[in-house]
Amino acid sequence: MPKRTLRGTPSRLILPVFVLMAVVATGATDSNEQPLLGFSKAGAAEQRALESRFDAALRADNLREWMKRLAARPHPVGSPWGDENARFMLDLFRSWGYDARIEEFQVLFPTPKLRRLEMIAPEPFTAQLAETAVPGDATSGQTADQLPIYNAYSVDGDVTGELVYVNYGVPRDYEDLERRGIDVRGKIVLARYGGSWRGIKPKVAAEHGAIGCLIYSDPRDDGYYQGEVYPEGGWRPEQGAQRGSVADMPLYPGDPLTPGVGATPGAKRLPLKEAPTLTKIPVLPISYGDALPLLRALGGPMAPEGWRGALPVPYRLGPGPAKVRLQLAFDWKTVTAKNVIAVLRGAERPDEWILRGNHHDAWVNGATDPVSGMVAVLEEARAVGELVKSGWRPRRTLVYAGWDAEEPGLLGSVEWAEANAALLRDKAVAYINSDSNGRGFFEVGGSHTLEQFINQVGRDVPDPQTKVSVLERLRARLIVDSRGNELRELRSRADVPIYPLGSGSDYSPFLQHLGIAVLNISYGGEDEYGQYHSAYDSYDHYIRFMDPTFDYGIALAKTGGRAVLRLAQADVLPFEFTRFATTVGRYVDEVESLAGTLREETEERNRRIREGLYELADDPNRKLVVPKPQDPVPHLNFAPLRNAVAAVEKSARAYDQALAAAAQEGRWPAAGERQRLDAILMKMERALTRKEGLPRRPWYVHHVYAPGFYTGYGVKTLPGVREAIEQRQWKEAEEQVAITARVLEGFAKEVERAAALLRGE
Amino acid sequence: MPKRTLRGTPSRLILPVFVLMAVVATGATDSNEQPLLGFSKAGAAEQRALESRFDAALRADNLREWMKRLAARPHPVGSPWGDENARFMLDLFRSWGYDARIEEFQVLFPTPKLRRLEMIAPEPFTAQLAETAVPGDATSGQTADQLPIYNAYSVDGDVTGELVYVNYGVPRDYEDLERRGIDVRGKIVLARYGGSWRGIKPKVAAEHGAIGCLIYSDPRDDGYYQGEVYPEGGWRPEQGAQRGSVADMPLYPGDPLTPGVGATPGAKRLPLKEAPTLTKIPVLPISYGDALPLLRALGGPMAPEGWRGALPVPYRLGPGPAKVRLQLAFDWKTVTAKNVIAVLRGAERPDEWILRGNHHDAWVNGATDPVSGMVAVLEEARAVGELVKSGWRPRRTLVYAGWDAEEPGLLGSVEWAEANAALLRDKAVAYINSDSNGRGFFEVGGSHTLEQFINQVGRDVPDPQTKVSVLERLRARLIVDSRGNELRELRSRADVPIYPLGSGSDYSPFLQHLGIAVLNISYGGEDEYGQYHSAYDSYDHYIRFMDPTFDYGIALAKTGGRAVLRLAQADVLPFEFTRFATTVGRYVDEVESLAGTLREETEERNRRIREGLYELADDPNRKLVVPKPQDPVPHLNFAPLRNAVAAVEKSARAYDQALAAAAQEGRWPAAGERQRLDAILMKMERALTRKEGLPRRPWYVHHVYAPGFYTGYGVKTLPGVREAIEQRQWKEAEEQVAITARVLEGFAKEVERAAALLRGE
Repeated sequence: MPKRTLRGTPSRLILPVFVLMAVVATGATDSNEQPLLGFSKAGAAEQRALESRFDAALRADNLREWMKRLAARPHPVGSPWGDENARFMLDLFRSWGYDARIEEFQVLFPTPKLRRLEMIAPEPFTAQLAETAVPGDATSGQTADQLPIYNAYSVDGDVTGELVYVNYGVPRDYEDLERRGIDVRGKIVLARYGGSWRGIKPKVAAEHGAIGCLIYSDPRDDGYYQGEVYPEGGWRPEQGAQRGSVADMPLYPGDPLTPGVGATPGAKRLPLKEAPTLTKIPVLPISYGDALPLLRALGGPMAPEGWRGALPVPYRLGPGPAKVRLQLAFDWKTVTAKNVIAVLRGAERPDEWILRGNHHDAWVNGATDPVSGMVAVLEEARAVGELVKSGWRPRRTLVYAGWDAEEPGLLGSVEWAEANAALLRDKAVAYINSDSNGRGFFEVGGSHTLEQFINQVGRDVPDPQTKVSVLERLRARLIVDSRGNELRELRSRADVPIYPLGSGSDYSPFLQHLGIAVLNISYGGEDEYGQYHSAYDSYDHYIRFMDPTFDYGIALAKTGGRAVLRLAQADVLPFEFTRFATTVGRYVDEVESLAGTLREETEERNRRIREGLYELADDPNRKLVVPKPQDPVPHLNFAPLRNAVAAVEKSARAYDQALAAAAQEGRWPAAGERQRLDAILMKMERALTRKEGLPRRPWYVHHVYAPGFYTGYGVKTLPGVREAIEQRQWKEAEEQVAITARVLEGFAKEVERAAALLRGE
Repeated sequence: MPKRTLRGTPSRLILPVFVLMAVVATGATDSNEQPLLGFSKAGAAEQRALESRFDAALRADNLREWMKRLAARPHPVGSPWGDENARFMLDLFRSWGYDARIEEFQVLFPTPKLRRLEMIAPEPFTAQLAETAVPGDATSGQTADQLPIYNAYSVDGDVTGELVYVNYGVPRDYEDLERRGIDVRGKIVLARYGGSWRGIKPKVAAEHGAIGCLIYSDPRDDGYYQGEVYPEGGWRPEQGAQRGSVADMPLYPGDPLTPGVGATPGAKRLPLKEAPTLTKIPVLPISYGDALPLLRALGGPMAPEGWRGALPVPYRLGPGPAKVRLQLAFDWKTVTAKNVIAVLRGAERPDEWILRGNHHDAWVNGATDPVSGMVAVLEEARAVGELVKSGWRPRRTLVYAGWDAEEPGLLGSVEWAEANAALLRDKAVAYINSDSNGRGFFEVGGSHTLEQFINQVGRDVPDPQTKVSVLERLRARLIVDSRGNELRELRSRADVPIYPLGSGSDYSPFLQHLGIAVLNISYGGEDEYGQYHSAYDSYDHYIRFMDPTFDYGIALAKTGGRAVLRLAQADVLPFEFTRFATTVGRYVDEVESLAGTLREETEERNRRIREGLYELADDPNRKLVVPKPQDPVPHLNFAPLRNAVAAVEKSARAYDQALAAAAQEGRWPAAGERQRLDAILMKMERALTRKEGLPRRPWYVHHVYAPGFYTGYGVKTLPGVREAIEQRQWKEAEEQVAITARVLEGFAKEVERAAALLRGE
């Protein structure tokens, strides 16, 4: 379950206009002469020598062999091959000198007993609901071991109703339907994948009274509209479908029965009926082969132009005459999730943990998702093990993890994070995540306190195809794709912005539940990624359409390895706060401008209603419904946020100056002081959380980054404020401004404490 | 041949920010109390009484009966039914009291002898090239009388070559192909309709070395992507294709053999071989049924995302492996174009002519194009005849025209305008054109000296569906569809902007060759217009999907009739110049900003090349070609244009004040003075022309409006300046700034003369 919608092209770049120190080179300068954040000059040289030895140990053949092995059979959580894989990795870690173990959790994991979808009017049709084996693909025919096409945590159901096409099925789409006089109450909705995380679609459909939900993969989004389909190309073939979780992850991820606590054998569990993250209505994913007869049988008005996909039919909305019956029944069993945890104890500061992980479970064979990332992490860990065998020891503790049960909803990582919450809040420095990987550009999201750090990492990793650094290549791509303000902003800095994280992979519990700084890294954008969560995500697909040479797997190992080794070895933990301050300042601009735009749009809409313009402009034959007036948008007081950002900026500058002076003069505080400094720095991200959490979803405690309540994977920055405005909750918006401002003021104070320590005060 | 691409939604609205006098009401106020431009208060009341009598005479049944009759059989120029129709209309005009005649021209009109399109690799396929008869449509099966699917003025040819998909086939598309290393030299291009006038596609293809050109109708543009296809809906079915002219109309329209002179029997004619407006390569339009096997057989890289249509295949560029042979041979015959000209001599000022026209020839049966407009013009003329029969006489002379041979390239109107050039330059006040018509919104383009006038007309015509004025309904539609600056500008005025005219119907020779003020009027946007230039443009299609009740035909008659009657009766010709000045000022803003944008883009592009960013950003597997650097864009001196616009604004204000004072006090100049004033006013548009014409196309003499050399129908305002900048001809741009400024200064002087006359000076 990689962050599919953001892969390759973060929808919005974070572009701080004000850049304090453009310390990242762009070409000519020898990157070996560039300083490393948190290291003295001598320390940097030593670190680079270590990284050269690390690089030299990496072998692409290992990635290839391990992928063949791990993806040889389907291996979802609880499956025999999944268990085999966990044991296989455990043995590997141990052979490399890690203190490794499997940590188990007992989690709810329903699998289908009955799946049936029939159209009963205007003509009969029974959906195939199966992926055809593909010639030249060694594993797509392993049907006995495959989980069939389904959505995990859909409720059981047997529903019959007229069909309505709802586009992506996000709240805005229902406004468009309402304008067209179409009500989904008592209907079954047909949504297409995309535009939101899939779990949002049944949630919003149920909120609007629908009784069932089908989700299909339109060929426009990852089928023939994008390129040749598998096996000629890498894109989704006619009978390919996307499995996936539909639990209400924005409420909380992980095991639906044990929110907030580890799903250990003795944990208190919710009764199944009370689990709030299960869907309210039955949901089934289907292929475009199965969707075409349904779409063809829809009547009613034409769908808005932006809703139309690439199937050769007029996209109409219904309701009906297409009428379908959807029958779903699941085996609501508990299975054992097996996380592989491998530890290398730090020689100097064993209680400062650098965490690195990737999941190992897959919906089917999962060569890309997650094996492509997992094998890079394994190779990275092996190369670190080689360093250890040669006598080196990390200063801080390294923890490598292979998570199980990520696909149903981050269960392995969430339960582990919940079970070890106190320990992690105390000891975790940062968590570095990866997942699917492919050929192309460096992709990186995460905490902006690590933006400068990860830019320095990217500056030192060579791109396999062009030989410049992966950072330089990414920057070139971003510039070539930009224009206007975005271009000017990119041109004003030497490094690149990293994107903020919502959800979609295992960083979420660390960042958003525990307040640990995270990074999520991968490569991609030059692959053909149409096999997502299907039986076609195979080794054969991978070596033709994703990363045939595994060169980008090695690039990922170099990137993750450098990040881990620098975090482990730095004299002072390499956090930096000016970029964070600038970025949050931009988020404040955004929410303020969001409120302003909403105010103007509301005024104009109400004026149009008052003046009767909709009635005049609408085609009388189309029977459109005039929108209802909305309450006017009050002016909100954003001053507390502005003042808080100013405080963060001020403290960040003070810290930068103190750090620069210390690094310049090679004058670090004494060891004890440095440890005290680390203790502050590693908990900076904790300072962005509040134990009360976000409104209506206390599991999410981070006040700068959260997955959107109505977008799922898609991030909402300053979520308390932004979502209150989006939901037109003005009182809550004002409260959240105050709360978020207090959080940021607290953060500024911690930065100031760190600066004072550095100055020797 | 209506202005298809602009129908319903002019791509760019003209939105003067500064509006001098918002004299047009929007609702509550009784429009009968509003002043009429060019009339005293008493005159306005009298005029409105006349218009009420005119309205009362209009009968929808006449439109229906005449459409049935005129569209009963195919009637292109030179066909038996076309001749019948001309005689039928002649008799009608005579029966209504007009002095009517048929004016004939001998024009080149090739029709196919041989059309054959075969794919010879990678597998054989022979294109059907025929439109299947449709059940429930009485005329689509009249194959014996139909012109087959073809493009008029394609040259003969027998070419064989690999296929390349070129999107719309405009110059920018070839830049994208070049970037992808694809050269069309020696190839046959497959272009889709849209994005430019069709004649641009073979012209640009030939400029790039292609040897043949196919143009198909993608279902995305007017097929199933838009709605149900005929006969279930109004959109283009699988075998439907778009006929049409491909002569190089932006060079000159009309008979290819007689540029600049009427195609009378004795006219000097170019040898066929030397006719510069014939295509350089053979061209054939095809259906999407015929295009699908060709597209499916293309290999090579994927087409850019914006190039992909709605056929269920990956859109790839080629070249090959699809290889086709195209054989075309035409009968290059001369036929007789028969314009029906009907005159009602003015009682007071017979030498001031108000011209009103619509073409009568069609590609096939042409119920929509052109019969829907033609029957409204006939009914308008009949109702005017009724007024005459009751004793009324127009003050100025009315000339009604039914043009022949518009479809091959405006031949009837162009030859008539060329043959009568001297007379028209001397006597024409304005020409009002219509063409296809349907259900929906008022659509109006033309000379901005008539913008206020036609807004006043639209204010007084009721919309058949909503009962408010067609102006108020249009304004509602524009506001509901707008946001941002566009919305603010619409909100700042009480009337609506009219769009500037390029080409595509019979106004072109009057406006752009003779400098006569024109208006082009129609209704539409709530119809299903997928039958364009096909055998499905039938009566049966019209009454189901265009304007079933003919209510919008009546609205068109009311609109055209009011325009004609007001121009005929006004005390002072109802031109106004402030809106024109504001609009031209905006065009100057546009060309200046165009040069600025081009400068910035060129700098950035050259910088990217210098810095090697394209090589870094490009996927090495895709073998992209780095763009070549371009000469930098110099700063141009736009001051002469700014000064000229200031002069036009000043004189326009002076005229407005003088006119307002005169109308207010009912103090018109004496009859002789008024006639002198008319003589100045009717020639104002002539003042925007220069006999030398535009660079490389002297036929086009207007310096504010012209069809784009590389867009065809699409207008280029301030064409000399704008196209020089677009073509990066900096010296020519400076020259054209000076020339256009002199033209506008001359215009300002004429306005000042008119103002002085009004003031009694």
